[in-house]
Amino acid sequence: MQTEYRITCPSSRKVYVKGKIHDIAVGMREISLVNKTSVVVYDTGGAYSDENIEVNIVKGLPRLREQWVEKRNGVGKLPAFSSEYCNKRLNDSSLNDIRFPVVHLPQKAKAGQNITQMYYARQGIITEEMEYAAIRENQQNEALGIASHITPEFVRSEVAAGRAVIPANINHPEAEPMIIGTRFLVKINTNIGNSALSSGIGEEVEKAIWSCKWGGDTLMDLSTGSHIHETREWIIRNMPVPVGTVPIYQALEKTNGIIADLSWKIYRDTLIEQCEQGVDYFTIHAGLLKAHLPLTKSRTTGIVSRGGSIIANWMSIHGKENFFYTHFEEICEILAQYDVAVSLGDGLRPGSISDANDDAQFAELSVLGELTRIAWQHNVQVLIEGPGHVPMNKIKANMDKQIAHCHGAPFYTLGPLTTDIAPGYDHITSAIGAAQIAWYGTAMICYVTPKEHLGLPCKEDVRAGVVAYKIAAHAADLAKGHPGAQVRDDALSKARFDFRWKDQFNLSLDPERALEYYRTGHLGEDSDHCTMCGPGFCAMKLSKNVEKQANK
Amino acid sequence: MQTEYRITCPSSRKVYVKGKIHDIAVGMREISLVNKTSVVVYDTGGAYSDENIEVNIVKGLPRLREQWVEKRNGVGKLPAFSSEYCNKRLNDSSLNDIRFPVVHLPQKAKAGQNITQMYYARQGIITEEMEYAAIRENQQNEALGIASHITPEFVRSEVAAGRAVIPANINHPEAEPMIIGTRFLVKINTNIGNSALSSGIGEEVEKAIWSCKWGGDTLMDLSTGSHIHETREWIIRNMPVPVGTVPIYQALEKTNGIIADLSWKIYRDTLIEQCEQGVDYFTIHAGLLKAHLPLTKSRTTGIVSRGGSIIANWMSIHGKENFFYTHFEEICEILAQYDVAVSLGDGLRPGSISDANDDAQFAELSVLGELTRIAWQHNVQVLIEGPGHVPMNKIKANMDKQIAHCHGAPFYTLGPLTTDIAPGYDHITSAIGAAQIAWYGTAMICYVTPKEHLGLPCKEDVRAGVVAYKIAAHAADLAKGHPGAQVRDDALSKARFDFRWKDQFNLSLDPERALEYYRTGHLGEDSDHCTMCGPGFCAMKLSKNVEKQANK
Repeated sequence: MQTEYRITCPSSRKVYVKGKIHDIAVGMREISLVNKTSVVVYDTGGAYSDENIEVNIVKGLPRLREQWVEKRNGVGKLPAFSSEYCNKRLNDSSLNDIRFPVVHLPQKAKAGQNITQMYYARQGIITEEMEYAAIRENQQNEALGIASHITPEFVRSEVAAGRAVIPANINHPEAEPMIIGTRFLVKINTNIGNSALSSGIGEEVEKAIWSCKWGGDTLMDLSTGSHIHETREWIIRNMPVPVGTVPIYQALEKTNGIIADLSWKIYRDTLIEQCEQGVDYFTIHAGLLKAHLPLTKSRTTGIVSRGGSIIANWMSIHGKENFFYTHFEEICEILAQYDVAVSLGDGLRPGSISDANDDAQFAELSVLGELTRIAWQHNVQVLIEGPGHVPMNKIKANMDKQIAHCHGAPFYTLGPLTTDIAPGYDHITSAIGAAQIAWYGTAMICYVTPKEHLGLPCKEDVRAGVVAYKIAAHAADLAKGHPGAQVRDDALSKARFDFRWKDQFNLSLDPERALEYYRTGHLGEDSDHCTMCGPGFCAMKLSKNVEKQANK
Repeated sequence: MQTEYRITCPSSRKVYVKGKIHDIAVGMREISLVNKTSVVVYDTGGAYSDENIEVNIVKGLPRLREQWVEKRNGVGKLPAFSSEYCNKRLNDSSLNDIRFPVVHLPQKAKAGQNITQMYYARQGIITEEMEYAAIRENQQNEALGIASHITPEFVRSEVAAGRAVIPANINHPEAEPMIIGTRFLVKINTNIGNSALSSGIGEEVEKAIWSCKWGGDTLMDLSTGSHIHETREWIIRNMPVPVGTVPIYQALEKTNGIIADLSWKIYRDTLIEQCEQGVDYFTIHAGLLKAHLPLTKSRTTGIVSRGGSIIANWMSIHGKENFFYTHFEEICEILAQYDVAVSLGDGLRPGSISDANDDAQFAELSVLGELTRIAWQHNVQVLIEGPGHVPMNKIKANMDKQIAHCHGAPFYTLGPLTTDIAPGYDHITSAIGAAQIAWYGTAMICYVTPKEHLGLPCKEDVRAGVVAYKIAAHAADLAKGHPGAQVRDDALSKARFDFRWKDQFNLSLDPERALEYYRTGHLGEDSDHCTMCGPGFCAMKLSKNVEKQANK
């Protein structure tokens, strides 16, 4: 297994911007241009993209936030893990060969202490995480004199109001703080994870780091196969971005896939297990109620959320209400002790154009609004998950209803896919919808890879999915007029007009791909044209002649 | 050189719907499903997708419309080609080896006769082309009982009003009639063509047929290298879809690339040459005036339209007004004699986010509106070309201004690209914008391939560009509520929910790709799951259990 990883980008180096309130240094990527200027861009590579830090995944990433958390005095290190299952796995010597080699005992809020970012924000406290996120959002705006509303105080106020989330489990100190909210840069989530049929731990860790290289802001580990616990440990210890999960997947592995055997007890232990490992946000389908099931009967594609279909089955087998819903207060109490955010799952999201915006979908959404208030009472940060398959004319209603029902909690959507007819290209069908809904206000968009509906993504699929979603997110940032978002477009376009090919490639979302395509034309990087138009027909070249003529 | 071509799609056969007014048969693709039903979809494959017709590109396609045109009595066959250049090429024996082997003498309107589709429409005449286009638009709606406004009479009235265009040069009888207008299915244009640095005739013909396979509705031959005349002849004789060009490219080849030497005389001969070859629509940058040039001075990327930059150079060298503009009436007189549509080029389209919606762009657009009226006075059909690079928040203004200035003539846009920062992925940056502007009313979107800004597209780039644009166009058809558009989505989603994998693939825009991706999971086509979730976690499978439980 490869153990040393490095993320490199051409003509780029890691630079750090220091905090003014706290002793923090926020990493960014500086791209040097051939004309001696530079552009600073948001960087999700963590230590992997700093050539001065050696990262070995057997040791894990530097524990950036450990001291910040300890200093705040609300938490204490436990003498042992609290989860029964976790201890069973730790004591199972047959797992020695695949277990992450370092054990970090878990942190937990001291009795009676509130320790979530939302709690601090409401107290008027600007944490290290908040200042970090504020600096990160501003990229090089300050240097360029671009006015921005994003100050540490603004971050605090948005988190306090529930309009933004900083996913930051105290047990995932390796993650660099980042913020998800409609008034910040649009973020993208990537999904990885094995299924019973697929890949091993090394492959998943590699895919996870790979997703950070291309710009994934958060990562969900959706593993459903064997060794979920161990795979997740490797991923979390090596992830510089927040990690999310859907805990019911693992709970179901614990019952050997028998849905009837799921119980609050098993689920609760799974939550604690994952809280203590360092998962930053949980997707919990607590808004899908028994009363909603009849609403799905006339659907073309029924229930297409994995978590949603599991809990729907459980309810229909037992004739009982969703135990996520009935135990929601207890869930919040657990999450609050580790500062795990809840991502309220849309178990009834439409899986086809035909089912978009139906009664089932919106009935669940209104329950998610109700649960948002409960979570906030516990100072638990909340994301609201959204669809799915939605034609363009029905996208805005999703955003409007989310705003109406969910009190300003950030929206986090899967696409939406704007047509059903292009399996193999659903990164595109969904980037079209994702760009739009992000422009309307969705804070984070969950990527879709070309393999959606067909199979598990390989590394190249992850790259294709991440880049498609970086495009959608950035297109939305531009459309929203996010301060500074256009700096990179302008720099790249100027480079293009000046035939600074290297700069054009290096400023792009995927410099390697751009260079590779350009080279198929066999031209040098100081050429004043490309094969598209040839030397005599280059519009940009001719355009410069018009200017020269005018200046004569 | 390969000479026999066939377009095949799995489980598909060509079916024909007969006309009720005229003796015509409109080809469509019927996809047979394993559950014994079928779905009929729009087909752009022409004779290539009919297994009962042998197509050899050395002979050219069947001349479908020849009799229709002759029967109308307005045209006559010329004894020889009218273009000086054309005759020179025909008499050049050094070109014998590369010349298309069959010579069809040109048709032309008899003196004093009007023969354009717009003229007939205004006379209340429903031509074969109009009925053909109407039937084609309806796909299988009639069989499914889906009400549609698209009757032959509706087609006629839209063409008469200038709100729709049927590009149908009388000298391109090989093309199957199709209609471009905001109340019809959104169409996509594909670009091919060699540059001085690139490919040969065989390769271009192959790319052109390939673009029809994937669903390209029209094709622009943007060749700028050697043998433009001969390449175009091969393409037109073998294209079942309308073919467009930018005649100034060839005019400039005739002056050996010297812009100063361009003249109305050379351009006029080029127009006639191409009218008699069968080009269905010409991009002419007649709206870019001398007065507009100063407006481009402050731009980030100047003039990025090739045709626009050529005429801008010519104006600035000679200090004269654009000769496309000053000779526009004469241009229309020529085009009307062959029923060539004019696509009024946007020479000042923005080439970067920074330049979007600027004064230069909109100044030109208002001139395009003025020219539209002139063309219509000559019964010449008109398309209006649009941008370009435009952030999402500025897209709608483009459509609104086009409607305000251009009297309802169909809008035909290049993308727009919604960010500049993703060279290598501009099929995606632009599909996002294209889907939106098509939803707002743009009638045809011009595809962008992954190689945009970097080089000439290869076959796989053409496929990627066409499929991305079919997605954008279809997403817009759904959003516009086009009658019957959702039939294919519903059929595919039902197949997906029923684990009819073959049907899911065969109903998709790219069955080969979908199957290829699915097979990476090594599953059989009768599996009840895919590798994405594995057998235990398939939401659709679980969803069916909920239903079964409910029915107990």
